[in-house]
This record gives sequence, structure tokens and C-alpha cells, in this order.
Amino acid sequence: MSKDKVQIFDTTLRDGEQVPGCKLNTEQKLVIAERLDELGVDIIEAGFPVSSPGDFKSVEEISKLIKNATVCGLTRSVKKDIEVAAEALKYAKKPRIHTGIGTSDSHILHKFNSTREKIIERAVDSVKYAKSFVEDVEFYAEDAGRTDNDYLAQVCEAVIKAGATVLNIPDTTGYCLPEEYGAKMKYLKENVKGIDKVILSCHCHNDLGLATANSIAGVVNGARQIECTINGIGERAGNTALEEVVMILKQHPYLNLDTNINTQLLYDTSQMVIDNMGIYVQPNKAIVGANAFAHSSGIHQDGMIKNKKTYEIIDPNEVGVTDSAIILTARSGRAALAYRAKKVGYDLTKIQLDEVYPIFLNFADKKKEIVDMDIHLIIKNSSVDCSIVA
Amino acid sequence: MSKDKVQIFDTTLRDGEQVPGCKLNTEQKLVIAERLDELGVDIIEAGFPVSSPGDFKSVEEISKLIKNATVCGLTRSVKKDIEVAAEALKYAKKPRIHTGIGTSDSHILHKFNSTREKIIERAVDSVKYAKSFVEDVEFYAEDAGRTDNDYLAQVCEAVIKAGATVLNIPDTTGYCLPEEYGAKMKYLKENVKGIDKVILSCHCHNDLGLATANSIAGVVNGARQIECTINGIGERAGNTALEEVVMILKQHPYLNLDTNINTQLLYDTSQMVIDNMGIYVQPNKAIVGANAFAHSSGIHQDGMIKNKKTYEIIDPNEVGVTDSAIILTARSGRAALAYRAKKVGYDLTKIQLDEVYPIFLNFADKKKEIVDMDIHLIIKNSSVDCSIVA
Repeated sequence: MSKDKVQIFDTTLRDGEQVPGCKLNTEQKLVIAERLDELGVDIIEAGFPVSSPGDFKSVEEISKLIKNATVCGLTRSVKKDIEVAAEALKYAKKPRIHTGIGTSDSHILHKFNSTREKIIERAVDSVKYAKSFVEDVEFYAEDAGRTDNDYLAQVCEAVIKAGATVLNIPDTTGYCLPEEYGAKMKYLKENVKGIDKVILSCHCHNDLGLATANSIAGVVNGARQIECTINGIGERAGNTALEEVVMILKQHPYLNLDTNINTQLLYDTSQMVIDNMGIYVQPNKAIVGANAFAHSSGIHQDGMIKNKKTYEIIDPNEVGVTDSAIILTARSGRAALAYRAKKVGYDLTKIQLDEVYPIFLNFADKKKEIVDMDIHLIIKNSSVDCSIVA
Repeated sequence: MSKDKVQIFDTTLRDGEQVPGCKLNTEQKLVIAERLDELGVDIIEAGFPVSSPGDFKSVEEISKLIKNATVCGLTRSVKKDIEVAAEALKYAKKPRIHTGIGTSDSHILHKFNSTREKIIERAVDSVKYAKSFVEDVEFYAEDAGRTDNDYLAQVCEAVIKAGATVLNIPDTTGYCLPEEYGAKMKYLKENVKGIDKVILSCHCHNDLGLATANSIAGVVNGARQIECTINGIGERAGNTALEEVVMILKQHPYLNLDTNINTQLLYDTSQMVIDNMGIYVQPNKAIVGANAFAHSSGIHQDGMIKNKKTYEIIDPNEVGVTDSAIILTARSGRAALAYRAKKVGYDLTKIQLDEVYPIFLNFADKKKEIVDMDIHLIIKNSSVDCSIVA
């Protein structure tokens, strides 16, 4: 059975770049955009053209450069924004304008000082206006996560009639629980006329650590696009991490969902974004962190050595990491020590291991990590005959 | 209606410490343990006593020190482990032994070269033996995430009969989706005799970025303990982040679940663990990252200034962060510039703002972040009368 495709909409260069202190120049953006195209993302959101002359230029240059992906520019529901975005996108092979407006009562009241009816009018007008420039128009209902489902369905129906091709349902504040976000998608799939002609899109923020889970709940319930960033970067706690949602779909084939991403480029792309933006990932970041495939505890190392599948669900090679490093610390068990000792040339018997292990532990209690040189020292300090060196 | 309590089982000092290169000495562990007690965690897993002399000593010293929390020591299903743990815990006011064994076919076959029947025997023997030393015995079914539910239920029933007080259902490899993990808890609640006499516990790993969501799915489906670490540290991609699950329960009162955590200590505790372990959190880490409450985009800043609730679901003070910083970059809108300008003394009119804003944008396109000094310079470079300075 052929799998349903989930479009990957990368917003590293737009929502991802909204990080205090990590602004990219146009040259850096072009390098990253080209790599995203190579990685296989379906849509590159290149910037917010009206926001600054630098952003306009970046979107324009990326539009000229990109061969495969759709190039997208963000706008508010403002004519000027849409005109400027259309201008910036004019060289794109596949241009998309991304327009929208806040739909939660909090946004309607506090941000726009408006009414539900007037917001629908503005939404429809913007989509129609964007449609006069490009065929592919994505509409975002900002703060959809806190928008009443019934009103959200009305907004969606209205913008579909106006010509929207993609409906973005953002959990702007990162408040939703997966069940709630999934239910919202399901409600729209079941209650919006014309919904099957358009693509529903997940755009989740990570304020409570749930962006990835929410996006997966979204596609399981009918969405077919995920908006995400490399390393999950973005304002506040960031956006959905591209590498996480892609690997979840790959690791759970029974979901019957697939992406076009070449996963072997994930690790290198992550490093490229770190280098350009200066926004590091923590060592325990899923998929791309320095420790993501490193094992140190005794229990785990023993299992790992006996069979990789015991503790590792992803083959590091699949995401472009060359090997799962075995690191020795005071948590390491005998099997790990024997394995590493063998790698540097000592084929210890069980009795020899019994002799060497306590020396290793004392050593490891004082030192954070045991490197190859230490193993030679430890064995020298034992009564084990060093001539076992291979 | 009074809320159900979810016990917070902190394993920063045990599973969290299994990070390559971040070993703590006993003094550091004592400082962190004391803080965890103050933070209000219900159980402190202090170490794996049999694993090294250093770990034994840490568990023993923590047992002497801690006033409120239960102190827990890890063991395998091995007599020696249990004896050593009991010895290390002997000074604890509330000691708990945490014993267990792998229950997935992958563990039974590859790690233990055993059978399902024999594994149940070992599990029962271990719980009984632990029970001969302490009243409170937690059993873990390692790799429960990949264990067939029917067999898992048999294991649980057997160890409850043997005297286990808590059943830990670990998703050891971080493979489960929230729906699946939640369904597993529900299955156990419905199919294990005696389950209502014990506490079901979530222990999730973050290999696919789903640890937090899985833990929440667990408690929504009947578990009443979450095993987690400060900053989500731990081997590979780490464990469930304590700060995330605690704030999710706090922010979703309709779940009717509560913890004993004093959330105002979260940020400071996070910093303490970073300082001691040298394992930093990324800037976009939820709740405790440097940017978790920082806003830079124009759209968001405008909303933020009008009403905090528009974009911020958590009051930073609630987690001990003093203010949500407004940072100016080329993404910042007019409202943000006006707000910041006012803070340094310029009360700009709309016309003045129109004059200053393009100068600000050109400036911001070249500079990553605009500080107060830059604002003075920008206004000097405009034709705006500097005498508006307050």
C-alpha cells in the first residue's frame, strides 16, 4: 500500500530566524536554502518580505536560486504586505504567498480591536488579493490553538471559497495538548465544506515541549503538511523540529505517512544551521544532539553490545551520524569495558576482567571519561599480563 | 473538586547522570539532592549503588541528608544489587528499592537469553527479596514500551502479588507514540488484578522528542507517577523534562492533576544542574531556555505589548524568571521600537516613529541586536528633536 505524503514546510529562514541574536545575512540564507532544497523539503518559507529591506532581498534571491521546492513569503492581512511579497517572489519557479490573521478571541479583541465577522472579511480579502498574484495561497489562522473550533471552521470555509490552497492551523502559544490539537484537525476535516480540496497544515510551538507530538497528532488526524525548523529553532521555545517529525514518520511505518526528506542529510544540515546561526543544540537533543546515539550506562552498554536493536531504535547512519560511540564512565559495566579494551587490543578473559574492573571503577570515579590511553594505564596497574595486547 | 496528585520521581542523579562526561562527585550530588527536596519532588532516585563505590557513597549520604522526599536506589534483578542498595539506603527516612528486569522479547532473548516464564520468576524473586529490606519497592519492566501488553500485564500482576508498591512502565528506547503509551497504561489499569493498590509510573525517553507527551498521555490514562530529570538530561536524547510535565499539568487545570512542585524554583534549579553537570540547555529549551520568554518578531511584539496573554501562556515569574525580555532585531515592528524607545526616554509620536523606523531597520539589518545605546544613536541620526528625551 502506497503511503500518503506529508509535505515538509521548512520555516527555518522565517519563523526559525525570529530568534534574538541569530539574524542571518542574505549569503547565509542562500546557502541554507540550497541545502534545504537538497534535503528534500517541499516548501521553503524564505522570509517576511515587507518586514525589512534585508528580508525582501533574501526572499528575492532565494526565489531565483531554488530549483525544486516551493518558495513562500509571509504576509499579514495587509495589501502592502501582499504586494511586497508578490514582488519578492516573482522569480520563484513555484511561488506561494502565506497570509493570515489572528482568529482567537484574544487576538481579535486585544490585537485587532475588531469582531469575528470583520476578521473573516479581512481574511477573505487577503486571500483573494494574494490569489491575484499567485496560484498557491496559504492562509494562517493565527492562534488557532486557542480559537473556538466552530468559528475556526467558518474562517476555513470562507478562505477556501476565496481560493486558499493550504490552511495553516497554528498553535501559536504552544498551549495545546496532542489530543486537543489532533481533535481540532479532525473537527475541521469533518466540518468544513471543501476541506478535501486543500491541504491542512500543522504549525506548532514548543512552549510546553509538545510541538513534535502535536504535529504528529495533526497528521494522524488528517493534516498533510508540517511546518517546522531545523533543530526546532525559533522564537521563545522554538518550533517543531523537522528532524524529529521526519524520523517519527519513518520509524512508525504503520501510520502510512511518508515525507520526501533524504534523512541522511539531517545531521549535516543541523550542523550547518548551528554554524550559521550560532544557536547550538543541547547534547541531549533528539536525533541531532551530540549524545543522541551515545551510550554510557552499564546496563545499556551490555545490551547494546549484545544487540544494537536492544536500545537503539534508529541506525545512526540513517541520519548521517557515522557510528554510535561507546563511552566509558563509572556507570559502564564489565561488557562495555571488555568491548572497549578489545578495541584497543586486550582480549580479557572473565577472570582478567574481574581483576581489571575494580581498578577501572576507581579510576572512573575520579575521571569523567575513560579514553583509550587510560585503558592501557588501567591494565598496566592490574596484575594482568600485558602481553595479551594484540 | 480536589485534584489527583501525580508523584514526581526525579532521576537527575541516576538516569540523568548517565550522560557521557557529566559525572558528579558526592558533594555536588548532595547539593542537588537538597535542592530537589526543597523543590518538592516526591522521590529522589539517588543512584545505582552496586555500580561503583562512588555511587554507593552518594546514595548513602543523600539518605542521611534528605528530610522530606523518599530516597530511591536502583538495582537489577540480582541479589547482590538489592543487598547493596538496602545497605546504601539504611539511613533514609523513606527508603525505596527500585528493581526490575527487561520484559520485551528483544531483552528476554538478546540480553538474558531466557524465556518469558523465567523472567517472571526472576522479577517476583527480586521484588520479594527487596521487600525483605524495605516496605516500598518499585518494579521496572525494562523496555515495557516494546513489550506485548498481555505479557506485561502478567508480569505486573505477579510483582504486585510479590509486594511491589509502584510499577514503572519504561519506554526505554523512546519509541512509543503518545496514543500508544497512553493505551498501554489504560490496558494495565483495566486488566491487571490489584492494580488499584499500586501506583503506575511513566518513565519515558526522548529519542524521538516525545518523552514529555508520552508521560502526559500516561497520567491522563491512569498513571500517577512521572519519572523525569531537570532539563530533561540523560543518556542519548535524555529523559522526560521535569519542568515541562509540571508546567503542562499546571497550565491545563481541566486535567485535574496536580504535583507538589514549587514551580518558582524551576529556573534556578535548572541553572544549578547546568552549573554542576556542565550540560547546557539550548536557548529554545521549553520553560528554562534563555529564550523561553523572549520575543523578537514584530508581529509578536506588537501583540505582547498590547496584552501579555496574547502570546505568553506562562507568566515567567511562575517559574522564577524575572521578566519577559523584549529584544529588538530587524524582525521587530514599530510597536516594539516605540515601547523600547519609551523605556529609554523617547515618547515618539506616530509621525516621529515613521521617521525613525526605517533608520532603525537599516541599523538592525547590520547588527544582530539593538541595545539601548543604539536607540539613542538611531534617534540622533533622524530629524526627530532629541529634546523629547524625558
